[in-house]
Amino acid sequence: MEFISGVKKKETFEISELFELEEGTSVKVNGAIHTIRDMGDVAFVVLRKREGLLQCVFEEGLTNFSLKDIKEASTLEVEGIVKREDRAPNGVELRLREIKVLSEPAEAMPIPIAKWKLSTSLETKLNLRPISLRNIRERAIFKLQEGVVRGFRDFLYQEGFTEVRTPKIGAKGAEGGSNIFKLDYFGKKAVLAQSPQFYKQTMVGVFDRVFEAAPVFRAEKHNTKRHLNEYTSLDFEMAYIQSFEDIMAMETGFLQYTMKLLEREYAKELKILGATLPKTDEIPQVRFDDAKRLVSEKYNRDIRNPYDLEPEEEVLISRYFKEEYDADFVFVTHYPSKKRPFYAMDDPKDPTFTLSFDLLFKGMEITTGGQRIHDYQTLLEKIEKRDMSNEGMESYLMIFKHGMPPHGGLGIGLERLTMKLLDEENVRETTLFPRDLSRLEP
Amino acid sequence: MEFISGVKKKETFEISELFELEEGTSVKVNGAIHTIRDMGDVAFVVLRKREGLLQCVFEEGLTNFSLKDIKEASTLEVEGIVKREDRAPNGVELRLREIKVLSEPAEAMPIPIAKWKLSTSLETKLNLRPISLRNIRERAIFKLQEGVVRGFRDFLYQEGFTEVRTPKIGAKGAEGGSNIFKLDYFGKKAVLAQSPQFYKQTMVGVFDRVFEAAPVFRAEKHNTKRHLNEYTSLDFEMAYIQSFEDIMAMETGFLQYTMKLLEREYAKELKILGATLPKTDEIPQVRFDDAKRLVSEKYNRDIRNPYDLEPEEEVLISRYFKEEYDADFVFVTHYPSKKRPFYAMDDPKDPTFTLSFDLLFKGMEITTGGQRIHDYQTLLEKIEKRDMSNEGMESYLMIFKHGMPPHGGLGIGLERLTMKLLDEENVRETTLFPRDLSRLEP
Repeated sequence: MEFISGVKKKETFEISELFELEEGTSVKVNGAIHTIRDMGDVAFVVLRKREGLLQCVFEEGLTNFSLKDIKEASTLEVEGIVKREDRAPNGVELRLREIKVLSEPAEAMPIPIAKWKLSTSLETKLNLRPISLRNIRERAIFKLQEGVVRGFRDFLYQEGFTEVRTPKIGAKGAEGGSNIFKLDYFGKKAVLAQSPQFYKQTMVGVFDRVFEAAPVFRAEKHNTKRHLNEYTSLDFEMAYIQSFEDIMAMETGFLQYTMKLLEREYAKELKILGATLPKTDEIPQVRFDDAKRLVSEKYNRDIRNPYDLEPEEEVLISRYFKEEYDADFVFVTHYPSKKRPFYAMDDPKDPTFTLSFDLLFKGMEITTGGQRIHDYQTLLEKIEKRDMSNEGMESYLMIFKHGMPPHGGLGIGLERLTMKLLDEENVRETTLFPRDLSRLEP
Repeated sequence: MEFISGVKKKETFEISELFELEEGTSVKVNGAIHTIRDMGDVAFVVLRKREGLLQCVFEEGLTNFSLKDIKEASTLEVEGIVKREDRAPNGVELRLREIKVLSEPAEAMPIPIAKWKLSTSLETKLNLRPISLRNIRERAIFKLQEGVVRGFRDFLYQEGFTEVRTPKIGAKGAEGGSNIFKLDYFGKKAVLAQSPQFYKQTMVGVFDRVFEAAPVFRAEKHNTKRHLNEYTSLDFEMAYIQSFEDIMAMETGFLQYTMKLLEREYAKELKILGATLPKTDEIPQVRFDDAKRLVSEKYNRDIRNPYDLEPEEEVLISRYFKEEYDADFVFVTHYPSKKRPFYAMDDPKDPTFTLSFDLLFKGMEITTGGQRIHDYQTLLEKIEKRDMSNEGMESYLMIFKHGMPPHGGLGIGLERLTMKLLDEENVRETTLFPRDLSRLEP
């Protein structure tokens, strides 16, 4: 009988492992040919590997193959001699001796993915996403995005949160409204989750502190640079809060932790992307109505809608706090009750406002959060006051009927956060395979 | 201006923090009243906290409240004196002095959640899931499940994998067939992802090694103890493999890593659930046809379907390897080509079989994986041979047209893996909010 006993050491080397070797060592390496630069007697065969680019030097007469045997986008296993070389992309290069072609493309690339920055339009980039992502800069965006999610999870584990996985198909949407995708579920009406709201509150009754990083679905008909119809929501919910400020403190902690993680473990991607991380040591907070007034005064702008922030106002509030406090983030608190969902807790001092907040980052809302109603009667009254129906909410209401601690939480749009971290203009740039009004593929 | 500067130390203590304190220290603790046991002069008020149960001792005359002021399922902030007590649930108790009631239930629990093991039917447990999860044993299942996902991610990060998030709404299903949920997407036909297959292969062309832990959706009309219509799939895909055994080796490595993680960080949950972790140091592998023959001979059972394993055969194969090798896991390799998807790589030695495998765990398939076709022409030929259409597969085929490395991967059903780890009989026991033919709520 044969047995599998786990992962064995690979015969081939990664770029970071090459540094541990003496110059002159002969090694095997694999990778895809990113580009070939033929200089006559010598040629540079640049391999794309998961850690970056590796320059391999082809010298006529020293190899078991001819330059004509290889082409861009082939994948290879090569054997060569390690040499330190400051001019090579990662400070090390390989003098080629032998190659084995593992696979060959059927057609040449329709876009020059080996260019440092793709100059093609966003539309073309997205149409060709499966291969445009092979560009070093494009893929760095999503490596960095991995780091943001890792930061979210690792920080929250450390703070005693439990990770949950809640269903994406359900019988009723959390927020209500028309922006819900509907589907047929074996003859029953079902919807796609626009938020894990009800479930994460439910799980707060079980684990006190929970989080989830998962897709959410919104059938919004906005065709803007900041809307997606499917995105990743970083959600957490925590019990036994003293105030809704505890939630903002937890989010600030997440940002602080994550910026350090990115600096430490994603420095290469930050450099490739030319990104400068924002300051997160302290984040100003301002009341919704004060924020409106401040920007109205400073920028001579009429307040048109006293109940909500227009995108332009979000930009101005961020500008204000950048100019006055050199802050990239600002918490806007106490949103009007009528613009918040029924489960938001009203401010006992003035119930036309809620104990809730948005976090703005460089002019854009990336988080909505707040304290939730935890008392059963209060919740029933609010539902009634809004002329809503309890129908389909039995399971949600059950948790309050049988006792819930004071709690609150938030949701962070991962793609928007990444977009603003990288100063991108369109959220599709930082979405792996975006879904919007017109895009369902790739 | 006010600023938020991050997470401050909490005023209240968690159970593990109580051990760091001297006996006699006065502390604040919060929690939900799990149960009250009134013994006359003294009463035990057991608080449910995220780390477990905390016994608080109520002694008449020593407190600022009466036992009548509190009831089960209320949430409290209490002040009391720390005392080591071996007979208390976690070895420490609190002598109560003061309480503040944070919230009260409107109705008493319909099931006795404070019982060690809920004796209610699975159906009732699921109907009442939002509160039945407050039972210590029930919630331990999902804490442990968190550990399995952590193990998956942490191990793969360590092995150089990148985490990706692929869309769940798409234009076409990866495996084809009828078990796909359909939805209307702004007037276009869309489907829910039954697997991240195409996308993870796409991302292998970008990052070499990728993984995703995310929901998948299957409109299968099976109503069994092992099927769900939405579940969490732990997927990975890796390039530059020498053989499909590399994939099995990686899965074995994941299992080894995760069992160690569970032993180390989830010992409490393992104890609560009375679970004994399986051996993972080596996992036998057997060819599909050999496995059929072995169990047919040993258990005198006719081979009825030579192309697929019946559930009963999976049970017998596992029984065989348990009896002969004391193995809980077994890799069954070389499944017949006609029962595997078009993208599976056929065995060059005999193309009626594939370089693929299932992993059986205690009688049930928990993984399907294998090497994929990476050559464009070979893939086109296989699609043609199967009379399939290329329509809607342009983006997928693009990656092969422009060069793909040899690669393969797998998908692990998280809920099934958890089910078998805990020797549960029904996969719904280990699914937080199951979705099946008749269940869309809670």
